[in-house]
Amino acid sequence: MVKTTQKLNNTNVKEFLDKYDTFLFDCDGVIWSGSNAIPQVPETINWLKNTLNKQCLFLTNNATKSRDSYLKKFSDIGILISKDEFFSSSYLAGVYLKNVLQLPSDKKVFVIGMEGIKEELNGLNIDNYSLEDYHPVDEDDLSKLGPNLDVGALVIGMDRGINYAKYAHGYQLLTQKPLVHFIACNDDPTDTVNGKFFPGTGSIISPLINSTKRVPTVVGKPNISALESINALYQLDLCRTCMTDTDIQFGLSGNLGTLLVFSGLTNEEQFSSQSDIIPEYVAESVAQLYNLN
Amino acid sequence: MVKTTQKLNNTNVKEFLDKYDTFLFDCDGVIWSGSNAIPQVPETINWLKNTLNKQCLFLTNNATKSRDSYLKKFSDIGILISKDEFFSSSYLAGVYLKNVLQLPSDKKVFVIGMEGIKEELNGLNIDNYSLEDYHPVDEDDLSKLGPNLDVGALVIGMDRGINYAKYAHGYQLLTQKPLVHFIACNDDPTDTVNGKFFPGTGSIISPLINSTKRVPTVVGKPNISALESINALYQLDLCRTCMTDTDIQFGLSGNLGTLLVFSGLTNEEQFSSQSDIIPEYVAESVAQLYNLN
Repeated sequence: MVKTTQKLNNTNVKEFLDKYDTFLFDCDGVIWSGSNAIPQVPETINWLKNTLNKQCLFLTNNATKSRDSYLKKFSDIGILISKDEFFSSSYLAGVYLKNVLQLPSDKKVFVIGMEGIKEELNGLNIDNYSLEDYHPVDEDDLSKLGPNLDVGALVIGMDRGINYAKYAHGYQLLTQKPLVHFIACNDDPTDTVNGKFFPGTGSIISPLINSTKRVPTVVGKPNISALESINALYQLDLCRTCMTDTDIQFGLSGNLGTLLVFSGLTNEEQFSSQSDIIPEYVAESVAQLYNLN
Repeated sequence: MVKTTQKLNNTNVKEFLDKYDTFLFDCDGVIWSGSNAIPQVPETINWLKNTLNKQCLFLTNNATKSRDSYLKKFSDIGILISKDEFFSSSYLAGVYLKNVLQLPSDKKVFVIGMEGIKEELNGLNIDNYSLEDYHPVDEDDLSKLGPNLDVGALVIGMDRGINYAKYAHGYQLLTQKPLVHFIACNDDPTDTVNGKFFPGTGSIISPLINSTKRVPTVVGKPNISALESINALYQLDLCRTCMTDTDIQFGLSGNLGTLLVFSGLTNEEQFSSQSDIIPEYVAESVAQLYNLN
């Protein structure tokens, strides 16, 4: 197959901007890197929203923080967005439980994850609990971590407080009858923190998949259910929607326009060697949209 | 394929006992269940050793305890064995590091596991360390969990004190150059504690496999390297060696005689439905060897 990727330049940037009404953006490596904005990206986003009147929506697989903390992060780097314009996988997990699975209100959710998930579930009035207090688990302790018929779902996201008690209780829940729903915020095998790789949610979850032989429903990118949830709220014209990311699998799965940016961990050289990933456009960073005009 | 399994009875028990000089026994569900001996098994083992002069060797995938604690457990239920007659997967990991990989003496081993592994490595003078003290890992803490060029191997076994710092440091070690050896005590997806299932070592290890895409060397059953290590010390006549277990995959892999016992979690009904597993002999328990005589 011949690559039909275009590199954004002065000639094609106007055509690109005219083609789309809605721009979806991944955050890490696209809007910011760690706690710093990618240079000139805040100005670019504000110009897209305020001057060109484009709809800008933001998406992250990171479920460690609540949407409120993300809004603060946006504001700190000079981008003002509302809660409705931001989709974290923790929020998508809550929406999936409430709107898709219609979890009965008397059922609890067992959370293996950090504050982000708990705050989003609380915000949606979904009763939830976790096993935060680490303690060495002896064989008698283990016997107490039984199933719990009050529980209707297990939601797992990145959990830097993971411990064996959580895995042991999760195993008991996922193998009990009636079956407990099994939701993962994302299945990324690695996570990047300050530019270094570490085990990601897709790895932290694997002891439960391996021991129970169950496969979770993944609510984050690149799973198409993430787009379905956003689309249910916004009725997007998918032909006039572009996904901007450092990895455009999600955009391709959803048949969206795709802009791959090299401001994250994928550089142009790595991209050129992957002949099977064909974004519509590539650019050094989102800031080029503004600078090329 | 026609099953050729024989059920032990008065007619064939003498033929069975004459056929083998060496008996290898798994422990859990074969010798004991939790802290109790399987009824009459201690008498049977003592009779095999002392009256019939059979060589009896014991094997366990459980790496949580040291061989010394297992010897005490044997003694508590009335079986006197020496340290040389017992192979835990923690000891096999040490033997593999020292004798097979010939790990240089200036290289350390990072242990994800419980006392059993540390005590066995100490016993073999292999310098080792772990990250026992759990603490919530913020993004700055994570950056400190870097690679360590003094480390030559990572050994993982069941670890009920598992935490994210161990996974994060393990990831850094396994992806550093030169590559750190990656050894797993066993790859059992589940573990049984007091007759209940929980995530096993093969599940606890999976975040490291998933994130690094590396495959560990497994030193425990049913991996054939367990038999190679035992055989290196005992020069067994494999044709005259029988493996007794609740799951005879190890015996089959090693072309040993096989006796499947129903005193553990596999019962006769489950066995009958698995037409692809064909042990040479089956019995209710090891005690039948004695009782049928």
